[in-house]
Amino acid sequence: MSDRLFMNEMSWTTYQKRIEGGALILLPVGATEQHGPHLPMGTDVMLATAVAVDVAKQLDAIVAPAVAFGYKSQPKMGGGNHYCGTTSLDADTLTHVLRDVIKEFARHGARRLVLINGHYENMMFTIEGIDLAMRELSYMGIRDFEVLRLEYWDFTRTETIEKIFPEGFPGFALEHAAVMETSLMLYHHPELVDMAALPTDKPADFPAYDVYPTRTGWVPCSGVLSPATGCAAEKGKLLAADYAIGVTDAIRKEFPNVKAKTQVMA
Amino acid sequence: MSDRLFMNEMSWTTYQKRIEGGALILLPVGATEQHGPHLPMGTDVMLATAVAVDVAKQLDAIVAPAVAFGYKSQPKMGGGNHYCGTTSLDADTLTHVLRDVIKEFARHGARRLVLINGHYENMMFTIEGIDLAMRELSYMGIRDFEVLRLEYWDFTRTETIEKIFPEGFPGFALEHAAVMETSLMLYHHPELVDMAALPTDKPADFPAYDVYPTRTGWVPCSGVLSPATGCAAEKGKLLAADYAIGVTDAIRKEFPNVKAKTQVMA
Amino acid sequence: MSDRLFMNEMSWTTYQKRIEGGALILLPVGATEQHGPHLPMGTDVMLATAVAVDVAKQLDAIVAPAVAFGYKSQPKMGGGNHYCGTTSLDADTLTHVLRDVIKEFARHGARRLVLINGHYENMMFTIEGIDLAMRELSYMGIRDFEVLRLEYWDFTRTETIEKIFPEGFPGFALEHAAVMETSLMLYHHPELVDMAALPTDKPADFPAYDVYPTRTGWVPCSGVLSPATGCAAEKGKLLAADYAIGVTDAIRKEFPNVKAKTQVMA
Amino acid sequence: MSDRLFMNEMSWTTYQKRIEGGALILLPVGATEQHGPHLPMGTDVMLATAVAVDVAKQLDAIVAPAVAFGYKSQPKMGGGNHYCGTTSLDADTLTHVLRDVIKEFARHGARRLVLINGHYENMMFTIEGIDLAMRELSYMGIRDFEVLRLEYWDFTRTETIEKIFPEGFPGFALEHAAVMETSLMLYHHPELVDMAALPTDKPADFPAYDVYPTRTGWVPCSGVLSPATGCAAEKGKLLAADYAIGVTDAIRKEFPNVKAKTQVMA
Amino acid sequence: MSDRLFMNEMSWTTYQKRIEGGALILLPVGATEQHGPHLPMGTDVMLATAVAVDVAKQLDAIVAPAVAFGYKSQPKMGGGNHYCGTTSLDADTLTHVLRDVIKEFARHGARRLVLINGHYENMMFTIEGIDLAMRELSYMGIRDFEVLRLEYWDFTRTETIEKIFPEGFPGFALEHAAVMETSLMLYHHPELVDMAALPTDKPADFPAYDVYPTRTGWVPCSGVLSPATGCAAEKGKLLAADYAIGVTDAIRKEFPNVKAKTQVMA
Amino acid sequence: MSDRLFMNEMSWTTYQKRIEGGALILLPVGATEQHGPHLPMGTDVMLATAVAVDVAKQLDAIVAPAVAFGYKSQPKMGGGNHYCGTTSLDADTLTHVLRDVIKEFARHGARRLVLINGHYENMMFTIEGIDLAMRELSYMGIRDFEVLRLEYWDFTRTETIEKIFPEGFPGFALEHAAVMETSLMLYHHPELVDMAALPTDKPADFPAYDVYPTRTGWVPCSGVLSPATGCAAEKGKLLAADYAIGVTDAIRKEFPNVKAKTQVMA
Repeated sequence: MSDRLFMNEMSWTTYQKRIEGGALILLPVGATEQHGPHLPMGTDVMLATAVAVDVAKQLDAIVAPAVAFGYKSQPKMGGGNHYCGTTSLDADTLTHVLRDVIKEFARHGARRLVLINGHYENMMFTIEGIDLAMRELSYMGIRDFEVLRLEYWDFTRTETIEKIFPEGFPGFALEHAAVMETSLMLYHHPELVDMAALPTDKPADFPAYDVYPTRTGWVPCSGVLSPATGCAAEKGKLLAADYAIGVTDAIRKEFPNVKAKTQVMA
Repeated sequence: MSDRLFMNEMSWTTYQKRIEGGALILLPVGATEQHGPHLPMGTDVMLATAVAVDVAKQLDAIVAPAVAFGYKSQPKMGGGNHYCGTTSLDADTLTHVLRDVIKEFARHGARRLVLINGHYENMMFTIEGIDLAMRELSYMGIRDFEVLRLEYWDFTRTETIEKIFPEGFPGFALEHAAVMETSLMLYHHPELVDMAALPTDKPADFPAYDVYPTRTGWVPCSGVLSPATGCAAEKGKLLAADYAIGVTDAIRKEFPNVKAKTQVMA
Repeated sequence: MSDRLFMNEMSWTTYQKRIEGGALILLPVGATEQHGPHLPMGTDVMLATAVAVDVAKQLDAIVAPAVAFGYKSQPKMGGGNHYCGTTSLDADTLTHVLRDVIKEFARHGARRLVLINGHYENMMFTIEGIDLAMRELSYMGIRDFEVLRLEYWDFTRTETIEKIFPEGFPGFALEHAAVMETSLMLYHHPELVDMAALPTDKPADFPAYDVYPTRTGWVPCSGVLSPATGCAAEKGKLLAADYAIGVTDAIRKEFPNVKAKTQVMA
Repeated sequence: MSDRLFMNEMSWTTYQKRIEGGALILLPVGATEQHGPHLPMGTDVMLATAVAVDVAKQLDAIVAPAVAFGYKSQPKMGGGNHYCGTTSLDADTLTHVLRDVIKEFARHGARRLVLINGHYENMMFTIEGIDLAMRELSYMGIRDFEVLRLEYWDFTRTETIEKIFPEGFPGFALEHAAVMETSLMLYHHPELVDMAALPTDKPADFPAYDVYPTRTGWVPCSGVLSPATGCAAEKGKLLAADYAIGVTDAIRKEFPNVKAKTQVMA
Repeated sequence: MSDRLFMNEMSWTTYQKRIEGGALILLPVGATEQHGPHLPMGTDVMLATAVAVDVAKQLDAIVAPAVAFGYKSQPKMGGGNHYCGTTSLDADTLTHVLRDVIKEFARHGARRLVLINGHYENMMFTIEGIDLAMRELSYMGIRDFEVLRLEYWDFTRTETIEKIFPEGFPGFALEHAAVMETSLMLYHHPELVDMAALPTDKPADFPAYDVYPTRTGWVPCSGVLSPATGCAAEKGKLLAADYAIGVTDAIRKEFPNVKAKTQVMA
Repeated sequence: MSDRLFMNEMSWTTYQKRIEGGALILLPVGATEQHGPHLPMGTDVMLATAVAVDVAKQLDAIVAPAVAFGYKSQPKMGGGNHYCGTTSLDADTLTHVLRDVIKEFARHGARRLVLINGHYENMMFTIEGIDLAMRELSYMGIRDFEVLRLEYWDFTRTETIEKIFPEGFPGFALEHAAVMETSLMLYHHPELVDMAALPTDKPADFPAYDVYPTRTGWVPCSGVLSPATGCAAEKGKLLAADYAIGVTDAIRKEFPNVKAKTQVMA
């Protein structure tokens, strides 16, 4: 039982021993959001969790229960919150969930947390959640708690981009439910990808501004911001390796005394 | 892909079709809480989810992403919130999570929701979450949305109790991480139960009141409120059947036009 | 003036002397809620206050102003919040009232508080109110403030139950505005009980779950969950004695250095 | 039972009949605040309630449970919140209590409310509480609910001032626990006034500004802002008559269809 | 650049040097509110800022960015919030803005702040904002931060009143957009006063109470509570001198170690 | 007076006429944030306002009072919130300010708003503020209110970038207080730029993640993320023209019936 990854699958006594031994906690934060007709709505939380699992294996870290609901989908980022199925939280709800659980991890004795975000819209609210938690922790006299916060896709290496997009990278902006996410899902959860449903809409062409209420006509009906054509499990594997290695290296650099396994990722 | 149970594993297009077809949503609400040295901390969310899955199979319903963090553990209910590992939300954080997702389900077009609670301390906050959501829905002119709310253990039949506790039922009050929950976990997730770690503390003997800060000495060190001695997967199966059948019947009675599969549970 | 019980009837100089002398504060928390056609809507706050008064006399304690509005009435607990007259607070309103006044008592120099709840629906929100107050007090460096929290009916002795219900106790669940509350009111406030209006509805028969919006048809029209037939002032006296003695004993046990009068309750 | 004044002493059926008959609700709002060594801490809530009772008798109105905790005492208004015994709410706690109960009165079917404030510091927060309630009521389509809001001392007639202060009125600013409040308490609650403890501090002499944290030295130690010398029950009676008549007349003018008793106040 | 007054026009390095040198911060708080047809809607914020500028010149103080939106206009104070153009904040929004910026000034190292309020309705919310900030600062161990809070008109000297109102002062209550504010604007911002639009409504005649929703008929259509007839830049100059001198003197008295320029105001 | 741009300089009667005539409101949102030793802390709010003014001149629009405090500065975006002088709001404070004023503009009768953001960290909170306002407006039955939301730098044309960075554009990420902002300030507010203080730090080199508490060593001491070398008023003029024209065109496209002046920008 000592080699479990998921906090929720451990007993409290096991967890306590791991924390006392200096184990790091990884917190995946995702969303329940439309990802086109070919990907499941849990894509963001599944991919953030997948990165957490890969990193946890390297560092003997603990994967906390993922935050499965995220901030409201935005048209240019995830198609918009008008889609059926997209299930989002108000800003301060999400912020308070993060604030509360971070404070609990600190109470447990943890002093290092890595928050792995898989839904772009969450970014600023994870920052506020961390800030509110750190502020209250300081009121309790806890000032040595540290959080490394990241969006996993920022660890994509240029070499990988070139391999995945041999004809040129259109940029991260329209990658919602497109080549990168679909490839990652084909690698991590192929049974949840419906390749037959891959949409063929043209890429979205957004202006430099937003309009509210959402101009739903700006978004391809499928909810996919650019075609996933060219997606492949093999590409997903390359990306997954970038994230596993990149995030692990970042943690080792910033939290040098974190427990590290001797074996290297296959 | 049409026979998936979990909302997060469906594409939005599949989900939309199911909702348009009148599918019911089941929302499991649990906790991340110590359950003694023999059960995993995710026990409450796993059991609420297990009930949801069994019911969903009967009714062709959709299981929404479970709420994995619950309200602060209380000494007499779950051992208290001072345990390492127990990871809880403030009351209004939990309430707002429920409020927000319920409003989203209504926006999707759903009109029937079943909230399945697996953590006693959550009860009143699920009620407030539902009330706040219903109030805002009424502001939007939505007045036909209905929620059936339950604690799953309230569906335990007397006959089952008698079979599980042949020497007399000590009552639900001390059943935290005890015979019933351990039996259910042995049935649903045997690989997560560590029978070798079953504690042998005597049952807790609580007074008629609470004291805060928690008198931690009142709670057996293990976190288990009464011995799980006598737990068995077979007993868990009996309980699971009560919940699957009882909850399904309740839904059929209250939401008679809900889609029902013809096959009966094996 | 030194023998007053009610904080609000004392001058601040008297109160300060009492607090400096170690006097305990008792905070009654009730509701404004329908209690059938025969009992006044203030029943919960009057009974919580009555217990506080009886205990205060034993322990030379101070009775703080009662919280007269409580959490939303629930069908199975108090008939439901749809009744005309029932006047309830949102969860966080009630929680914040309790948080704020508890912090004030601590600022005054008090270090022991007994919160006496007379409305079942309030329970979890009194817990959250206490927790939020304790948390903020700890930020101020106050860590020796203690709260004993109770529902008064949990101090009913088995012997008393047997005397009051010679034909068998139907259980606390349906006791809203029924034999126990009516008897207590006949003992404490007979002029407010209208025996001619005693309803004769059959007991409510609730299922194992809730439905929202409230299925108002589940609740007897009168708002009384089971018949008050057999109520009597003499029975109320027995109950009152249980509460006065039981709560006093609990306080003496948990807060042993609390000031105790020498005379015993008549 | 039909001639009761206090909502909390009525059954819901009685209350409902009264509301259906167009009865007006009066809501006293006070504080728990030091009022010198001679007056009880509940002075503000007792006086607001006394006005409500006198008016209710004229108009066959209903007196709702008083709000017993108010906003934080300010040095120039009530001596400051640093006094032992003063027990105050945060602004939004008080505001939300008022918002919630006002919405409940509207749900009951009431359409006219009079909020009688007895604690100066509450004024702006009663305004915000009313505004938030009215806003939410409008979301529900209720737009005919009206609130008359007042501080009772604004109904003091010039003739009365001249009688009470034959040597000239020093103004309302320093009247905290001074001649007017003490006279009113001598009239309404003489048993709660300790004339032997009447302080003889000189009047406070405040500058044109505030400093926070409170410069406690600005406030006379007793907490009384100007001497109560010259207070008398007879003067309290004059004031009480002004308030009873003035408030009643205001209500009759603004809410002309309110039920009015035929008898005149003695 | 060292002689700039406005924080927002300074670089952070300049500001830091000033703060390290003990410079005082002045925070103007105003509103965006109708001020009749002849005055701009920014009158309150402009006048609070003008006072701040005059004082800052005397004391080498720093003028922070003004809070341009205030609490909801009240009929008797500023005409009511139903006017087109009046743009107000909810109570807790305003309170939180003040709480947040005060905490930031303390983080910068400032220990003395003067909050200059120019909108009567803001008063109690500035008090709550200050209180919430002080409370949190105390959690951080900062207990030497002081705030001097004022409404600028309270510094009007009797001699000035007599000069401005040779025929008798009607009192501050109806001075909204009337002689004093118009004179001050003629002095400070003559280009923003439209003397041709000076309304000639009679003074408002308010009762001793409020009614909500606002009885808009109580307020002169122009939004001006009493005629500005007799306003003059020269009168504004007298008032401005009172405020500049009075506020400066108050600060010197309460915060004696504040940096003072040698030159005297012309 | 009819040709004023700033709402706060208009009387309410003028404003009302403009709104009734269909005038558009522009709301600048900025920050009070360090911008290196050479730029004032109000840079973000000044530049957002400058864009608003240029656009307002084209469209006969109204410039609302700018929001002068923004969300907490982030290391990679604005240097971090640890700098002396940076004065930020909590997320929900900023969000609620925007929610409240947007609702007020709608109450005034406006149906079109352009929110011009000048501080990157504000982006998601402006989105939430708009969403909360729209939601409440819908409760009031107002569903035709539209907001165009933008960060002004997204209107920089490629041709302009090439002219400003003849040796290649390092990207927007490090442009805090660098060439673009300094050039714009040299154009709009040259008297507030201290060219002698232009820092010569090397560009910041941030990793792909954040660490909290902020690793202050990551940020150049000056607070400038990349050298402003090469800044020039002439470049600022080019940028300003892009924004004036680009934003005006966007508004004309999305809000085609907005009032348009005939004259073209010089």
